[in-house]
Amino acid sequence: MAGTDHTKADLAAALPEGPAIVLVQPQLAENVGSVARAMANFGLTDLRVVQGRADVRSETAIAFSAGADYVLAQAQVFDTLEEAVADLTLLFATTARERGQAKPVDAPDAAAGRLVAHGAGGGRAGVLFGRERTGLDNDEVALASRVVTFPVNPAYASLNLAQAVLLVGYEWFKAATGGAPAFAMPPRSPEASQAEAIAFYRHLEGELDEAGFFRSADKRASMVRNLRNMIHRMEPTKQDLQTLHGVVTALVEGRPGPEGRTRNVLKPLKDEGQG
Amino acid sequence: MAGTDHTKADLAAALPEGPAIVLVQPQLAENVGSVARAMANFGLTDLRVVQGRADVRSETAIAFSAGADYVLAQAQVFDTLEEAVADLTLLFATTARERGQAKPVDAPDAAAGRLVAHGAGGGRAGVLFGRERTGLDNDEVALASRVVTFPVNPAYASLNLAQAVLLVGYEWFKAATGGAPAFAMPPRSPEASQAEAIAFYRHLEGELDEAGFFRSADKRASMVRNLRNMIHRMEPTKQDLQTLHGVVTALVEGRPGPEGRTRNVLKPLKDEGQG
Repeated sequence: MAGTDHTKADLAAALPEGPAIVLVQPQLAENVGSVARAMANFGLTDLRVVQGRADVRSETAIAFSAGADYVLAQAQVFDTLEEAVADLTLLFATTARERGQAKPVDAPDAAAGRLVAHGAGGGRAGVLFGRERTGLDNDEVALASRVVTFPVNPAYASLNLAQAVLLVGYEWFKAATGGAPAFAMPPRSPEASQAEAIAFYRHLEGELDEAGFFRSADKRASMVRNLRNMIHRMEPTKQDLQTLHGVVTALVEGRPGPEGRTRNVLKPLKDEGQG
Repeated sequence: MAGTDHTKADLAAALPEGPAIVLVQPQLAENVGSVARAMANFGLTDLRVVQGRADVRSETAIAFSAGADYVLAQAQVFDTLEEAVADLTLLFATTARERGQAKPVDAPDAAAGRLVAHGAGGGRAGVLFGRERTGLDNDEVALASRVVTFPVNPAYASLNLAQAVLLVGYEWFKAATGGAPAFAMPPRSPEASQAEAIAFYRHLEGELDEAGFFRSADKRASMVRNLRNMIHRMEPTKQDLQTLHGVVTALVEGRPGPEGRTRNVLKPLKDEGQG
């Protein structure tokens, strides 16, 4: 989806420092590239890789990063997991299944709250992601202080590496920024006043009376309430009500009246003999 | 990441019906396949495609679905968007930027709450996703009653099609299931009682007194409090405390005492003459 705005780099620079994303022996450069892209989407920049088969700086990784090659360029590559996480003071392990370790388990949103709080307190956090097929081994999980796992369809729980990073990045970004959408409904013309709304109700209801729309006084009361509620739910602006007045007028004037007016906009105007 | 359990299909079947995922003229079969995979991760099955260049049943799409080809097999393909959404009673449009339309804008989590509530009320909801490069056009957005957009790094907002579907699916699944992690910390042996904890404190502190660990009575009080708080934060079980008693005992007995005991476990045991 389009929408990157490179002039907004200042806004991105105002993000707090996010957690390190630590990939343990990734096998496919495609996945490392996709991870870099997912990190960039959510303002994460600290990629650490415990060397596996994937070449972090390969052309394939760069192609899959889709413009987030700056994340790959500054990625750090380590021989061992211990070196990769040496400076971190809070470490999560991502696992898709229970590992029999007496370690607290968080959903990604709860983990994100901890990551943001830890960063705000001056700590340096990271999240471990295992190999594509086999994940993290038990000793690697044991290095972490907490586990994060993803609520997924148990019948199809296979989440790929970049998707797992994407969800952690997304929740971290939500927690770090309050999760407000990137834009809101555009400002509209001023809201209509009650008096303006009532004036429109009277216009509409008068014309409907005229047209014999209400079958009985009894039904009229409840139908009027329904119509007014529909308009209320629309939260009309002054401009909206002017438009609606125009709509009602146009419909009325286009309607063949008792005098035989035929200015119905749906029919071509013909010069028929009128009484 | 591994973890799919096909015997859990029953659990998946208990999910409420999720929203339709409506792709408008996707161009790449790779993306359609990846969308199917992301849907399967979160129990979504109703894929609708307004025909673009991508062939929904192609081998490429099936390969990228990574086992979620059942989603592709039952996908519906339409000539027009109007046909694709005809039966839906709540429709969201995903857009990455403000479109100047007077339409409420939700973040994915808020949108997910509405989708779940709408489904629970018997309605049928859907989410529109636009073309890879150009998104939805303004008339397509106008068909929807609300907009959903993603909180992303403004400096790198390019979210690919399958990632956007993944985030909607993830938030829907969280909202539909309560978002609890798929597993928790394994059940542990029963929590220790206060009496057991205090017995351990006394054991530890007595040995530390013996070892001259505390420099002064003044420092002792605050150090004891710190040690006790550390043990508290560990939330020890009965079993944990037994282990810790054993650790303290082992450390003490392995320590060379004033009598010259040398049963330090770090050194090989030697038959040295003892007093």
